Amino acid sequence: MLSNYTIEPLENGLSNVKGFFCDAVNIGMRPNTDQGDVAFIRSEVLCDISAVFTSNTFQAAPIKHFQKYPKGFQTDFVLVNAKNANAMTGEKGIEDIDRIMSALESKIKVHNPVMSSTGVIGYRLPVEKITSAFHTLDFNASNSDKAARAIMTTDSFKKELAYKIELGNNESFNIAAICKGAGMINPAMATMLCFIITDAAIPKKDMDELLRISTDNSFNRISVDGDTSTNDTVLLLSNKKSANYNKAAFKEALEKIMFELAMMILKDGEGANKLVAFEVKGAKNEEEAKKASTALSNSLLVKTALFGEDPNWGRIASTIGASGIACDERTLTIHYDDLLIYSNAFRELDKEREEQAYKIMKQESFTVTCDIGLGDASYTSYGCDLSYEYVKINAEYRT
Amino acid sequence: MLSNYTIEPLENGLSNVKGFFCDAVNIGMRPNTDQGDVAFIRSEVLCDISAVFTSNTFQAAPIKHFQKYPKGFQTDFVLVNAKNANAMTGEKGIEDIDRIMSALESKIKVHNPVMSSTGVIGYRLPVEKITSAFHTLDFNASNSDKAARAIMTTDSFKKELAYKIELGNNESFNIAAICKGAGMINPAMATMLCFIITDAAIPKKDMDELLRISTDNSFNRISVDGDTSTNDTVLLLSNKKSANYNKAAFKEALEKIMFELAMMILKDGEGANKLVAFEVKGAKNEEEAKKASTALSNSLLVKTALFGEDPNWGRIASTIGASGIACDERTLTIHYDDLLIYSNAFRELDKEREEQAYKIMKQESFTVTCDIGLGDASYTSYGCDLSYEYVKINAEYRT
Repeated sequence: MLSNYTIEPLENGLSNVKGFFCDAVNIGMRPNTDQGDVAFIRSEVLCDISAVFTSNTFQAAPIKHFQKYPKGFQTDFVLVNAKNANAMTGEKGIEDIDRIMSALESKIKVHNPVMSSTGVIGYRLPVEKITSAFHTLDFNASNSDKAARAIMTTDSFKKELAYKIELGNNESFNIAAICKGAGMINPAMATMLCFIITDAAIPKKDMDELLRISTDNSFNRISVDGDTSTNDTVLLLSNKKSANYNKAAFKEALEKIMFELAMMILKDGEGANKLVAFEVKGAKNEEEAKKASTALSNSLLVKTALFGEDPNWGRIASTIGASGIACDERTLTIHYDDLLIYSNAFRELDKEREEQAYKIMKQESFTVTCDIGLGDASYTSYGCDLSYEYVKINAEYRT
Repeated sequence: MLSNYTIEPLENGLSNVKGFFCDAVNIGMRPNTDQGDVAFIRSEVLCDISAVFTSNTFQAAPIKHFQKYPKGFQTDFVLVNAKNANAMTGEKGIEDIDRIMSALESKIKVHNPVMSSTGVIGYRLPVEKITSAFHTLDFNASNSDKAARAIMTTDSFKKELAYKIELGNNESFNIAAICKGAGMINPAMATMLCFIITDAAIPKKDMDELLRISTDNSFNRISVDGDTSTNDTVLLLSNKKSANYNKAAFKEALEKIMFELAMMILKDGEGANKLVAFEVKGAKNEEEAKKASTALSNSLLVKTALFGEDPNWGRIASTIGASGIACDERTLTIHYDDLLIYSNAFRELDKEREEQAYKIMKQESFTVTCDIGLGDASYTSYGCDLSYEYVKINAEYRT
């Protein structure tokens, strides 16, 4: 069956979704710039909300605050700050959020407001500073660009996308998202915050189901440095304002927007220059395919070989061998894009093929395909190279 | 009971052990230098030999060649080459070793000779070049320094140690070792080769047992970059020439020599400037203590924070939280050496304490102690910082 819907990109991110507002302001947490550090997204009517949070045991205070609301709660307000993660701050960190939300409620009527934070771990939020933002923020604005830029940390560009989904018969709905993330990205979420809003009339049950699937197929497949943060959060809010919905169309649009955001994070991987897909196929089962693929996208030696544009397939093979999956050097094959670079019959790289491999590695993105040759299972994860810049950014992060 | 033995260091490494010979020569695999690339260790009488090999599924050809000998075999000859790992070379890689050993046997009588290789993966050994070495090597020399330098790859200094163990009553034995390793070091061995020789009259059973324990307490506790190579090998050879032995003394000497070599590898971690012990205590069980400790010594964010000398305990806490062990931010404490840097009651770093932390982090080595506060189990692993140099060395390794 042909799909009876279309998905078209839109400019201006969050501004496209009916009944939502957003804005950001600089309250001085990010000094000497007009780039915001506190942002909000609100809806004029109550929204269903679905969330996926970090697997880190030390979940940050905003995540704990969120989880205090009863299951299935509705909200109309998300507050976000950069520069301070409000993580490892204990009960006090949660109380700080309550104080901030009390101040908010004196400015505007909100229901079950939630918060997200990103930045340095172990410091209390500057509550007075943050509440001072409520005097300046325009609660009826649609400043998607400002919001997208306000949530950035080491990001070098804002991450903002929107799509219009036409269902035919003049029925349509929109979906939009802003997202931040650059380093500390691991296939168990990432230091990333992602806020997705839609006016589709999607049932809560579908929201939960599709957000989980899409997270597994996007943010959980990328690796910048193998670390998993205390604050990782993906929120999906729907206010049903369009009154239209189609599950297949929504699923495709959500997966598309989340996958594209994940690739933007990877391209923005701290100091990264290359985006590489690590496709492992022919594994005994999906768990093994995933294990090997994830080992590749996390390996320092693979990452530095990518940075050096060295067609050293030995590091690929060694990483697969070290991953602990069933494998055999006689059945394994390795391709860079379509170029066979290792097989049992063909082990040593001749000059000509090495030249071809160099060309492939010089591209901004390419695929490494490892066929284990022992089964039918496959998994693809996505990684980037490791450059001097990564070390510099992360050695100097707090200063 | 006081120990009734003494362990004293000796100069000149392998040369101290009765009945062993060693030498090295440059056959042009390492161009434009008089540093050797082929070395040997031989004993004038047959030795018992114990081995620990890499856990990588793709074991290199020399390891497979070793394993073709019957269990409990004895040998009198170890040949080592640098610059070529003879890994992922299939049956041909093993045949190449057989050809090399046939050529060796036409020069000198040897029994069950074994080989070790380190270097680039995926290239056949230059058999003719290597056999040409047999014309030049002095099979009756004791050139420990030459052998130690010949097995180096990205090592910046040779690793060579020897100890004399005095048992009293004019009884003594010696133990000596050479070792190589710098990058690709992971708590599942390392890209490292280690050759330990002794004239102690140690039973084969004790050799196997003590080598396994000592490996777990030395090479398996260090991490440079979390990768595990195809070639990792630790060999222990004993020719019993001294006729003396004491199990407790041998155990202590073996652990000492292997732990010191492991620390030398870590200090030589590619581009590394700092050696850090990650002590995790108060964990529910040893497996969890090990998991958290290993996560710390492998974390890119922790490693770059060490390089940046940033007392950012948030990355330590986040890594423990991400490791998946049972933990609670209310029971956790973190110390840098003796300085309390995080506890439930004491979360935010004041200026004074931050200054003290900076001082500790400026040292060449220090200890990070994380008390999980939930049990009695502990584990210590050892790591180093990640510097620009690491990226440079590994981006340019093959060229």
